[in-house]
Amino acid sequence: MLVVMTPQATPQQVEDVVKRIRELGFTPHVIPGATRTAIGITGNRGPEGRESIATLPGVLDVIRVTSPYKLVSRETHTEPTAFPVAATRVGGGGFTLIAGPCSVENEKMIVETAVYLAAQGVKLLRGGAYKPRTSPYSFQGLGEEGLRYLDKARRETGLGIVTEVMDVENVARIEEVADIIQVGARNMQNYPLLRRLSLTRKPVLLKRGLAGTLEEWLMAAEYIMSGGNRQVILCERGVRTFADHTRNTLDLSIIPVVRKYTHLPILIDPSHGTGKAEYVPSMSLASLAAGADGLIVEVHPDPQRAVSDGPQSLTFDAFSRMSASLRPIAEVMRVPIL
Amino acid sequence: MLVVMTPQATPQQVEDVVKRIRELGFTPHVIPGATRTAIGITGNRGPEGRESIATLPGVLDVIRVTSPYKLVSRETHTEPTAFPVAATRVGGGGFTLIAGPCSVENEKMIVETAVYLAAQGVKLLRGGAYKPRTSPYSFQGLGEEGLRYLDKARRETGLGIVTEVMDVENVARIEEVADIIQVGARNMQNYPLLRRLSLTRKPVLLKRGLAGTLEEWLMAAEYIMSGGNRQVILCERGVRTFADHTRNTLDLSIIPVVRKYTHLPILIDPSHGTGKAEYVPSMSLASLAAGADGLIVEVHPDPQRAVSDGPQSLTFDAFSRMSASLRPIAEVMRVPIL
Amino acid sequence: MLVVMTPQATPQQVEDVVKRIRELGFTPHVIPGATRTAIGITGNRGPEGRESIATLPGVLDVIRVTSPYKLVSRETHTEPTAFPVAATRVGGGGFTLIAGPCSVENEKMIVETAVYLAAQGVKLLRGGAYKPRTSPYSFQGLGEEGLRYLDKARRETGLGIVTEVMDVENVARIEEVADIIQVGARNMQNYPLLRRLSLTRKPVLLKRGLAGTLEEWLMAAEYIMSGGNRQVILCERGVRTFADHTRNTLDLSIIPVVRKYTHLPILIDPSHGTGKAEYVPSMSLASLAAGADGLIVEVHPDPQRAVSDGPQSLTFDAFSRMSASLRPIAEVMRVPIL
Amino acid sequence: MLVVMTPQATPQQVEDVVKRIRELGFTPHVIPGATRTAIGITGNRGPEGRESIATLPGVLDVIRVTSPYKLVSRETHTEPTAFPVAATRVGGGGFTLIAGPCSVENEKMIVETAVYLAAQGVKLLRGGAYKPRTSPYSFQGLGEEGLRYLDKARRETGLGIVTEVMDVENVARIEEVADIIQVGARNMQNYPLLRRLSLTRKPVLLKRGLAGTLEEWLMAAEYIMSGGNRQVILCERGVRTFADHTRNTLDLSIIPVVRKYTHLPILIDPSHGTGKAEYVPSMSLASLAAGADGLIVEVHPDPQRAVSDGPQSLTFDAFSRMSASLRPIAEVMRVPIL
Repeated sequence: MLVVMTPQATPQQVEDVVKRIRELGFTPHVIPGATRTAIGITGNRGPEGRESIATLPGVLDVIRVTSPYKLVSRETHTEPTAFPVAATRVGGGGFTLIAGPCSVENEKMIVETAVYLAAQGVKLLRGGAYKPRTSPYSFQGLGEEGLRYLDKARRETGLGIVTEVMDVENVARIEEVADIIQVGARNMQNYPLLRRLSLTRKPVLLKRGLAGTLEEWLMAAEYIMSGGNRQVILCERGVRTFADHTRNTLDLSIIPVVRKYTHLPILIDPSHGTGKAEYVPSMSLASLAAGADGLIVEVHPDPQRAVSDGPQSLTFDAFSRMSASLRPIAEVMRVPIL
Repeated sequence: MLVVMTPQATPQQVEDVVKRIRELGFTPHVIPGATRTAIGITGNRGPEGRESIATLPGVLDVIRVTSPYKLVSRETHTEPTAFPVAATRVGGGGFTLIAGPCSVENEKMIVETAVYLAAQGVKLLRGGAYKPRTSPYSFQGLGEEGLRYLDKARRETGLGIVTEVMDVENVARIEEVADIIQVGARNMQNYPLLRRLSLTRKPVLLKRGLAGTLEEWLMAAEYIMSGGNRQVILCERGVRTFADHTRNTLDLSIIPVVRKYTHLPILIDPSHGTGKAEYVPSMSLASLAAGADGLIVEVHPDPQRAVSDGPQSLTFDAFSRMSASLRPIAEVMRVPIL
Repeated sequence: MLVVMTPQATPQQVEDVVKRIRELGFTPHVIPGATRTAIGITGNRGPEGRESIATLPGVLDVIRVTSPYKLVSRETHTEPTAFPVAATRVGGGGFTLIAGPCSVENEKMIVETAVYLAAQGVKLLRGGAYKPRTSPYSFQGLGEEGLRYLDKARRETGLGIVTEVMDVENVARIEEVADIIQVGARNMQNYPLLRRLSLTRKPVLLKRGLAGTLEEWLMAAEYIMSGGNRQVILCERGVRTFADHTRNTLDLSIIPVVRKYTHLPILIDPSHGTGKAEYVPSMSLASLAAGADGLIVEVHPDPQRAVSDGPQSLTFDAFSRMSASLRPIAEVMRVPIL
Repeated sequence: MLVVMTPQATPQQVEDVVKRIRELGFTPHVIPGATRTAIGITGNRGPEGRESIATLPGVLDVIRVTSPYKLVSRETHTEPTAFPVAATRVGGGGFTLIAGPCSVENEKMIVETAVYLAAQGVKLLRGGAYKPRTSPYSFQGLGEEGLRYLDKARRETGLGIVTEVMDVENVARIEEVADIIQVGARNMQNYPLLRRLSLTRKPVLLKRGLAGTLEEWLMAAEYIMSGGNRQVILCERGVRTFADHTRNTLDLSIIPVVRKYTHLPILIDPSHGTGKAEYVPSMSLASLAAGADGLIVEVHPDPQRAVSDGPQSLTFDAFSRMSASLRPIAEVMRVPIL
């Protein structure tokens, strides 16, 4: 950390800061300047004590130097994380496709979607049984019944299952069916839920919150890793900004940044990212070209009659066309589509 | 709802939209225009069917006309909501002060703070026993022990208790101690938690999420009200924007807007809103002048040694000065400070 | 400045940074740490050389310590800036009211408004002759004709004139009529215009840009001051965020922050800040309570027929009511309304 | 337009709105509903009269249905705009590369860069002679001297020149040298400048403002087109959001949206979009894959010694590598790199 004093700070105030730093068990390094003094701090292992110093008289700012995350950081774990899931894998150089409807609406539609996707070579099926909905009066998902249909879809096709958990109560139930447990954007900082998921042996797909900074997102991943779960997948799905031409603002530039700071894989969700099916293909191609580890996209047998997220769901035909346009680019990039 | 067709839409496409609207049980009203056709819809009671229409060929946009919230709306419940809490009340024309530390750090500090605040005429004490922290390695609150200390503080001073709940598991435990249960900004859209709180008889203070729109916030309140809990308090605590001169951007303009659309009371949290104790007094005065129903502010016996949120906590002296500056303005506005 | 090296940085890379700092004429202070090295820099007077260091191998970040503004800074000029304008003054403890229509639509309406405002004790009239409009097909202002009507309004009432300049060409013309020259939000970083205004002897009211950070805003003021014009007035008018319940998000918390960092006066524009006349009174009261130096509000004899900004313009009656509600609060705060 | 009345609106208020619509020369269509009335408006050609209706008693909202832009709209001009520039072209299916330093620092560096780029097959050189700088104390560009060096670079290499104009005064001077005149993000809504550029015969590259919505951006293009200049190029360069891991938030999802609503070509500026050279290549590949019409990237012979924007400038080597990685993708997409 670096303490910056105001130009008006008195020598006594500088002395008090030095004293407090020593009290905290750290080492102060006074750097006198032309108009003000700065004090470097070494020996600390995190931001502890920062606030305690920031409130001392004469202190203008306390600047953090070391990153607050440990297990997610690429600084200590330089190899990219990769692991097998169902009949495929995530991370480490491939481009993993996850597809399926927003929510499991009935047995027929989820099985039909799974059969179609399996024929397309997709290995992972998404579908929500528990749905976070803005209105208490909207369809909230089929719950356990939905999980049974997902299980059925898996047994009929061999696809792995990706489904969302919204609370600690349902983790055990979802663990039985899911191959990847999804944490939605609204729950990125639901810490009791993250702690519970740190104890599961299933991979966790952690969506970035609508107002999530890179640091908060990586710290949320750190929560999951800190309990022993090393299989965390990051997922960018658009953030909230002033821009109103898409449902959210898809932040593809976070791909190379995530790559720089962490070893965890990153997927892109262009369906929530844009909110419109017609914009999904170009953002999917862009995700591949930018170096993402894969996609999670919404596909529905009949988007016009979807109970939720119809406008952003691809039809089977649209998915096939998109898939076909991904392949030649993946080939020249030498990235296998998984 | 209003359906707007593209200029290229064919008469057949218009006919298909009309047909779909009738299938949904609503009444279409075709409005032909110079360059395009619009179709008004009546008979619907909410946004149901909107997505189903939006995905039809030739449709440019489907615009919602009626508001999606019912119980929170001022349209049907025109009187402001007010209710008693501990020895005071919230809503209906007074200015309720809630004060206390970010977290309960030990028995001594919380009791000392309560005694001080009681002497200042404050009737409600805030203090967190369960803390949502960005880092898994930071202090996470004293949990049940913290609740016991809050209970002690109440017994010694008669102050009502405001404390945060982070998950369904702890609701019953917190209900026993709290006079108002707080839902933090990160949990504004934690729907299982909101549903559980719809069943408690304690008032719920619902903070606005960091990226929460007015509509999402009111819909979150609707979740709580829809289960039978009529005692919801809204709390603005700053939203996340590009601005970096304060911790968050405190959106005081939402006060008159909330007043217009809902009967629920609204408090302001200038401590999280600004993130710096020195900016809290002016934002507190502004909240009063703008017509808020009260404040929730952080006060700590020794902010420099606070375990969390020290920089934004007022000292006892600073709180006394702020309190003194509120009184004459409240008087000329004829708003009793509660 | 403080240079932070990556944990992998080699001793040679640290050495290269030290060398570059010396080349730039500054003094390096190496601070070795447990996991990485930091290097403090003294002797520099601004951010020069920052980028040159940031691109060296092994450098993670270069953190700026000193503020980049000089003339606007409160560090060197501790007294608040105040100056007379027409028959009143701005800054230094009063609350200055500026009112009038968005644009000068014709002679009758501007004179009528001026007469009304003068009777209300207002001393400064706003009104646009040159209007920045989003559409090239919208009314663009009366131009010189509008300036003549403003001049007429001044001669009939003695009010000082506040009017906007959009380009260098018109500065001389506007200088003749205006007592305060307004720079709109879209021109906050129109540097050729700011440079030209640094040479005028008229005060400049500088609106904050829609995406303007505090630093950018103060640097824009620095442009004006750097040419010799000491009479700069800052004006907050809302920024652009995700929030859609008001036209912009009025950032009142910038009032105490501006007070801390600069000696310049700050006015609030609640009309653009909220975009709705009904929200203007509560935000005006809040601005006063928060310590602003005054207001600039839109008032129109017949908002329903206004050519621009009708929905956010107060009627004469609404202005009178708002004015009456400001007075008692100003009195107890001992702030004269000017 | 569609007028939505409040549920409390009286029949008389509905009647008054109908009357006002007729006064404006439009046709009202009353749509009675269960809880409220809506009134469709036809016969209008733009948003005129909208505010006049919005302020009538009983009106909740006035919703615009038709788009406000005409010349830029794809609705009337369905073919993509394409035109020749220097020895290449922009729009209509190719991927045009523009590259060069942030600012022209001296003759040697700009000629050296041009020679290098020409050897790489690049046909358009960027370089600023007039620079908008946040600080009045920073290097502001070489001005006319810089234009002479650009001209020299052109004569030596045959490259076309892309350079920024900041004010009306310099348009004529820049027209002589530039093949494409650039309008920077800060000037997107500098309407006098846009009007002046509507009269030039040179193509204009219009950067999106830091807080520019799609509609504002297209309306700014409409300003340029409305005076007769049909050669407008849109350029996305990142917008300002809460995200702090990149300098701006590059909004690639605007590519397919721009394609949908306008016939104008769109380029991407990944250098300003990310602010870091290391993130530029992946965002360049993503831009190509997403269907952009080209790139404008910063390249500098020695970024560590660049006077401005060093951290985001590619070295010659980095540009060559990026260029090489674009080619195979462009080939499989059948998009010629221009």
